[in-house]
Amino acid sequence: MTIGMFSSFITRHWFSKVAVDIWSDEATLQAWLKVEAALALAQAKVGLIPFEAADRIATCCNANEFDFERLSKEIAFAQHPFVPVLKQLEELCGEPAAGFIHWGATTQNIFDTAIALQLKKTHQHLISVLERTEERLKSLAFQHRCTLQAGRTHGQHALPMTFGFKVAGWHEEIRRSRERLAERAGESFLTYFGGAIGTFAAMGGQGRAVEDEVALFLGLKPAQLPLRSSFDRVADYLSALAVLAGSIHKIAQDIVFMQRSEIGEVEEAFHMGKVGSSTMAQKRNPSTALVLVSLCGMLEARLPMILAAMVRMDEGDSSATNISDVVVGEIAILAASIAEAAERVLSGLHVNAENMRRNLELTQGLILSESAMMQLSPRIGRHKAHHLLYEAAQRTAIEGKVFSQTLSEALKRVGISDMALDLKPENYLGEIDEIIEDLGSPR
Amino acid sequence: MTIGMFSSFITRHWFSKVAVDIWSDEATLQAWLKVEAALALAQAKVGLIPFEAADRIATCCNANEFDFERLSKEIAFAQHPFVPVLKQLEELCGEPAAGFIHWGATTQNIFDTAIALQLKKTHQHLISVLERTEERLKSLAFQHRCTLQAGRTHGQHALPMTFGFKVAGWHEEIRRSRERLAERAGESFLTYFGGAIGTFAAMGGQGRAVEDEVALFLGLKPAQLPLRSSFDRVADYLSALAVLAGSIHKIAQDIVFMQRSEIGEVEEAFHMGKVGSSTMAQKRNPSTALVLVSLCGMLEARLPMILAAMVRMDEGDSSATNISDVVVGEIAILAASIAEAAERVLSGLHVNAENMRRNLELTQGLILSESAMMQLSPRIGRHKAHHLLYEAAQRTAIEGKVFSQTLSEALKRVGISDMALDLKPENYLGEIDEIIEDLGSPR
Amino acid sequence: MTIGMFSSFITRHWFSKVAVDIWSDEATLQAWLKVEAALALAQAKVGLIPFEAADRIATCCNANEFDFERLSKEIAFAQHPFVPVLKQLEELCGEPAAGFIHWGATTQNIFDTAIALQLKKTHQHLISVLERTEERLKSLAFQHRCTLQAGRTHGQHALPMTFGFKVAGWHEEIRRSRERLAERAGESFLTYFGGAIGTFAAMGGQGRAVEDEVALFLGLKPAQLPLRSSFDRVADYLSALAVLAGSIHKIAQDIVFMQRSEIGEVEEAFHMGKVGSSTMAQKRNPSTALVLVSLCGMLEARLPMILAAMVRMDEGDSSATNISDVVVGEIAILAASIAEAAERVLSGLHVNAENMRRNLELTQGLILSESAMMQLSPRIGRHKAHHLLYEAAQRTAIEGKVFSQTLSEALKRVGISDMALDLKPENYLGEIDEIIEDLGSPR
Amino acid sequence: MTIGMFSSFITRHWFSKVAVDIWSDEATLQAWLKVEAALALAQAKVGLIPFEAADRIATCCNANEFDFERLSKEIAFAQHPFVPVLKQLEELCGEPAAGFIHWGATTQNIFDTAIALQLKKTHQHLISVLERTEERLKSLAFQHRCTLQAGRTHGQHALPMTFGFKVAGWHEEIRRSRERLAERAGESFLTYFGGAIGTFAAMGGQGRAVEDEVALFLGLKPAQLPLRSSFDRVADYLSALAVLAGSIHKIAQDIVFMQRSEIGEVEEAFHMGKVGSSTMAQKRNPSTALVLVSLCGMLEARLPMILAAMVRMDEGDSSATNISDVVVGEIAILAASIAEAAERVLSGLHVNAENMRRNLELTQGLILSESAMMQLSPRIGRHKAHHLLYEAAQRTAIEGKVFSQTLSEALKRVGISDMALDLKPENYLGEIDEIIEDLGSPR
Repeated sequence: MTIGMFSSFITRHWFSKVAVDIWSDEATLQAWLKVEAALALAQAKVGLIPFEAADRIATCCNANEFDFERLSKEIAFAQHPFVPVLKQLEELCGEPAAGFIHWGATTQNIFDTAIALQLKKTHQHLISVLERTEERLKSLAFQHRCTLQAGRTHGQHALPMTFGFKVAGWHEEIRRSRERLAERAGESFLTYFGGAIGTFAAMGGQGRAVEDEVALFLGLKPAQLPLRSSFDRVADYLSALAVLAGSIHKIAQDIVFMQRSEIGEVEEAFHMGKVGSSTMAQKRNPSTALVLVSLCGMLEARLPMILAAMVRMDEGDSSATNISDVVVGEIAILAASIAEAAERVLSGLHVNAENMRRNLELTQGLILSESAMMQLSPRIGRHKAHHLLYEAAQRTAIEGKVFSQTLSEALKRVGISDMALDLKPENYLGEIDEIIEDLGSPR
Repeated sequence: MTIGMFSSFITRHWFSKVAVDIWSDEATLQAWLKVEAALALAQAKVGLIPFEAADRIATCCNANEFDFERLSKEIAFAQHPFVPVLKQLEELCGEPAAGFIHWGATTQNIFDTAIALQLKKTHQHLISVLERTEERLKSLAFQHRCTLQAGRTHGQHALPMTFGFKVAGWHEEIRRSRERLAERAGESFLTYFGGAIGTFAAMGGQGRAVEDEVALFLGLKPAQLPLRSSFDRVADYLSALAVLAGSIHKIAQDIVFMQRSEIGEVEEAFHMGKVGSSTMAQKRNPSTALVLVSLCGMLEARLPMILAAMVRMDEGDSSATNISDVVVGEIAILAASIAEAAERVLSGLHVNAENMRRNLELTQGLILSESAMMQLSPRIGRHKAHHLLYEAAQRTAIEGKVFSQTLSEALKRVGISDMALDLKPENYLGEIDEIIEDLGSPR
Repeated sequence: MTIGMFSSFITRHWFSKVAVDIWSDEATLQAWLKVEAALALAQAKVGLIPFEAADRIATCCNANEFDFERLSKEIAFAQHPFVPVLKQLEELCGEPAAGFIHWGATTQNIFDTAIALQLKKTHQHLISVLERTEERLKSLAFQHRCTLQAGRTHGQHALPMTFGFKVAGWHEEIRRSRERLAERAGESFLTYFGGAIGTFAAMGGQGRAVEDEVALFLGLKPAQLPLRSSFDRVADYLSALAVLAGSIHKIAQDIVFMQRSEIGEVEEAFHMGKVGSSTMAQKRNPSTALVLVSLCGMLEARLPMILAAMVRMDEGDSSATNISDVVVGEIAILAASIAEAAERVLSGLHVNAENMRRNLELTQGLILSESAMMQLSPRIGRHKAHHLLYEAAQRTAIEGKVFSQTLSEALKRVGISDMALDLKPENYLGEIDEIIEDLGSPR
Repeated sequence: MTIGMFSSFITRHWFSKVAVDIWSDEATLQAWLKVEAALALAQAKVGLIPFEAADRIATCCNANEFDFERLSKEIAFAQHPFVPVLKQLEELCGEPAAGFIHWGATTQNIFDTAIALQLKKTHQHLISVLERTEERLKSLAFQHRCTLQAGRTHGQHALPMTFGFKVAGWHEEIRRSRERLAERAGESFLTYFGGAIGTFAAMGGQGRAVEDEVALFLGLKPAQLPLRSSFDRVADYLSALAVLAGSIHKIAQDIVFMQRSEIGEVEEAFHMGKVGSSTMAQKRNPSTALVLVSLCGMLEARLPMILAAMVRMDEGDSSATNISDVVVGEIAILAASIAEAAERVLSGLHVNAENMRRNLELTQGLILSESAMMQLSPRIGRHKAHHLLYEAAQRTAIEGKVFSQTLSEALKRVGISDMALDLKPENYLGEIDEIIEDLGSPR
């Protein structure tokens, strides 16, 4: 029996295989064991436990040797998620090593550190996907540097631009998100070995030394004040993932809109056999972009749980960590899946420059009203030019007369008949060219 | 100095004037005083306090007599929101009536009951706005019963329909929301006179009798077990407002889309002087629909605060009621404002049937692929018909051949050359007509 | 490999087995097939398709015959969640029945109706768990009708009450939630057979008749206007689950607090082998209550996704339904799990009346200051009595003198020396007894 | 009439006066005008508009000269929030300067840049409040370096610690939040002068030069690609405020708990005249800590609106910016208010070391079970020591025997009778002392 969106036959293809593997039960158990092994080795190094014991523990820390069904039953009985794991590990190690397992640690120390390991691994994958996505976006921006498109605000044509400009904007959001995540990585993937309440009470005075060793060993940073009740550093990293989701959410919505039947400016990759509908044979939906919107929404909706899980009673509070232990992994998988789907959509995106041009011309010049205003401004002032254009444009809208006519009538009324206004969209692109140039050449 | 979206010169026009008046500071103080007066009168009736005192108290319960600046200062000093109000009321009443004010009650009793009064008042207004909106929608549905429009799913043309059908769907959501709100009204607007913890300890054994009297007097329902820590009945009503917001949010997004420059199927009311942009004179934005989207989002985003405010420590918890005391009013104002704006947008909506028709024909018949499939199904089975249509439709999309051609080629391939397929959109409208009929005739 | 909280060996014991079974992949596929079967049978009944075909289809609608691995691969390839299911069903049925499957329907019709079936099944289970929980609470309330306990507000002792009173309050919240859910059940579990956009276009004029038949057959209600873009009725039911979660969240927090080491008024069931900590042997944590808090938080956090999923583009929008298709089931499982865990915690709850009494007496009489005030009020007025008590009580707090002393000194100052104030907590319980009586006798 | 929590007489004392002043309507208008002035001056500098015009514009950019009532009416009529402001500014400037106002800009440019100014100002205030709070926490940590207190997890006594250790943890969260905010400040307070869609189309080729000048002038950073549809940098800063709120939320809950009647370990500052209840004279509530909890909840609940407002249609979308224009200010005020209230609570906090000691001893030694286990571990292994302690501790809990007895019985059973276990809490504090030392000496 399968259940849950990550494993369901219906939805599993939405998710990053790499990330799902990192957060599977098997991988989680292995991460716990890796942390127990590192702890034992570090403690042997500083002299807290015998080398032989540490060595034996490290050898036995192999998830393949564990009986998951038994674990599951014992966890339900003990109502404790980890003591049954320790029990099996003790059996695997045998005496005397069994007596040195989990020395000075508490369950949440192991969980928190293991999550840091899994998060770091997901992070590294995520960064590389984002880097490829940026490259793709940069290429796309250069490729469509001059592909004219209507710029739109509030759903209405605003000014002309190029498709490359839009893509440059997407690129910048992704780039900034990647940089932010990279920066925070250093502060957010931590070891916690303070024991039951963070005081290192059971480490014989060597707690901080042990923590430093383990951190070095695992490639993490020591929490230094390893409180189980302090979740701010992880929450900070996760909030950066939510911001990334916000950016990709916007991009996906842009694509869904541009693929609308009436717009037709872009289209998601299609292959024969991709089905849009069980009843409408013609459907070519932006399926991946729509899934992307869904996944972004699901990630964003989890941030409030993370903020709520920061509020922990006293020195430890499972009502909060129950949630974060589950949700951190969910967010990590969602983030990786979002990045992968974004890369996929953008890589296969078909751009229809003709339709962009067709749409741009739809308002028969109205989209250049600002251009007209700026040409008139030096002569009559920007404010009067705006009033004049407003009247002309609205007459076009109301009376249906073409804009060039209402405009020339309006000009006549203020006594201007000698100006030839340039209303070519390609001449009103501002500094798009320089902006795209500044993205740097694509590799 | 003004601050806050309800009073800011920038945004105050977004909000229902009626609702803002109900929840203003002055009206809130008056609601508190009305509750104190009702309490005193009820207590006199059951013999708890002298009639003369109750009478005097009721007379003095007039917000106009209060000094708001002084209240504000004393509240900050006492760090208590109501004792300073009692103090001024005592001064206004004089002896001996002053000694009988607030008998057996606690602050939150007064606040909760006053909020119920304000909520009920807002509710009544809301219901009447929704009723008018329903009437408007019903008219619109009948008027456009036959106005052909493309039905769209996932952003792509799906089947033909009529604009009246879309509006009928909007109508049903609003109608159901109104009915839900009306049903819950009876259970959610409550008096709470249980005193400090809900036991009626200070009511000399007549607490429940007093509560019944006050409820009768104020047109509310007695809470019966008037716990300050039970917020479920109010939360339930407010969640119905969030569902209403969800429905109107969808309608508003539909309008924003249909007014898109490329679509042009509807347009919000316009008047000369309505400005779309400080720089683009041509802009005719769906401003009110966009504000509507914003207001719906703001209301929906407040529901988690309401759910969180259900979780109250023990018998009373100001960390929760501080929030609900503020947010209930905000939600009420937002709901009324949303309903008013929806009515406004829908009343002024200009429908462009020609553009609807133009868009419908955009895919040159592909929108009728299901119709073709259903015509072929009796002959070759629905499944084979789907495969055949899929291939034809996708060839149209990929090779650019017109659909009638790829379709007839496909038919030929399976040996069907004798069928004349009816691909007229008006002949594939299903049961739209009956559905609109069932809305009932508009008044 | 397992992944996800419902199946993980670490967390699966948190969740209702009954509910998980209802929403498993296998059960979901079976629910889809049940809907396809009902559709075929209904269509045969009204004459749309041949009886033999319907019969054959119904016979083949058996999830056990499906190849899940193949489904999963084909879904990923087609990027469509249902066409591969239809394909296998066609193969199972063979000709000519295969040609009559899914007649006039679209994927989302099947999904929405299947979800209604699953939701209804979960609902029925939930209601029976809640009923048992109410019975348990009623017994507990009667049992502790007179068990004195401190009533607390804002974390401070307020008035005396009994534990039975607190439980009566819990009872009422659960009862109201159950009643609300039962009422909404009738409106929220719907069939949707309008086809691609809700117009019944492919049902040969018999769509509404078919829908009525299917609804009857499946024990659901016909949606009547079966728009894929209208989600308000389901959202309304789910919001009632969120309100239920809010109530149980509060109860669980109460229990966590009352089990605090310093309070010790209640304790969760314990058995030897239940482990509180991997390092602190003495720990007896309120583990289930803490899990309950977590689950409630997880359910509440999903409501915004449901509200957001109400906002659907046009006549159908997978960016919204992708989310609701996943999240409705998650919420249903969470709700059932919460109810079961609440029943479990409440059934095993150990109540320590002695500690309740000990805590009640902790403030040495201060908890009866309101009682003293109400006794003094008839003589000097409520307001003056409050001032007098305020001073006496605060002197007790500041100077450490016992309350009886500061009180008698204060009384002396206003010339009252002849009053014997009754400061027994059992004499200041208000109408607790009648309130508990009104719950009705427990069976 | 006043309305809204920032100005209501009931709640205004919750909020930072400094922050409310920064975001008032008057200050907002002034910020807009400051941006218009800066724009004009920068444009004069690069030669886009005449110096005299810029000078005149800058002189007239004075909010005091504006008629707010007229603005409010005209905004409602124009359904545009800024064109009426421009109109009054044009009147104030007179010709010819009026013709050079708002050159090349669009409304949202002005709003976004003004918000950056206001946010930066609030940020600077916030940072200084947080610095003072850190100093206070550092002092408190050193002062209570050795004040014994029970460390608690899941609501149960866990290990001994000192109050200074708890405070050190609070300190670290605040310090990290302050550092994060300071880092992000540089990236998040931006100028946006790209005009209608971000292309600088109306800046005569000098847009980027103008933006650099304005940024320099206003102390902000140029957005470089100044898209109105990119909100990630502001969202990132605001998410750091939400994380700050999460940290302070936790601290406030700790204080509320520690002030509980039964715990009594800390107490908020009290002054005669501070009132806890209108009916219970004895009440000394942690009012400010409770308000703090409420404010943190209100801030956190606004983050989803910010994430949602990142999703903007195309090149600009007022349905999103309507929300962010309102909510950014609300979050900023909440953040400043939270920081101020936290400083206030912590500065006045009364610490009761005696009650801490009393509570620590409540479990009669059970809190040292881990200490006992670690003393036994070298002899019998950690795992066996845990089993032994588990049994002894649970017998104490179940049978009521004192821990020393069940422990010595258990030791006897495994043949250990010669060990004197040290169960003094002060000898099991781990590395608390070094951790506090590392905070650095308080100034």
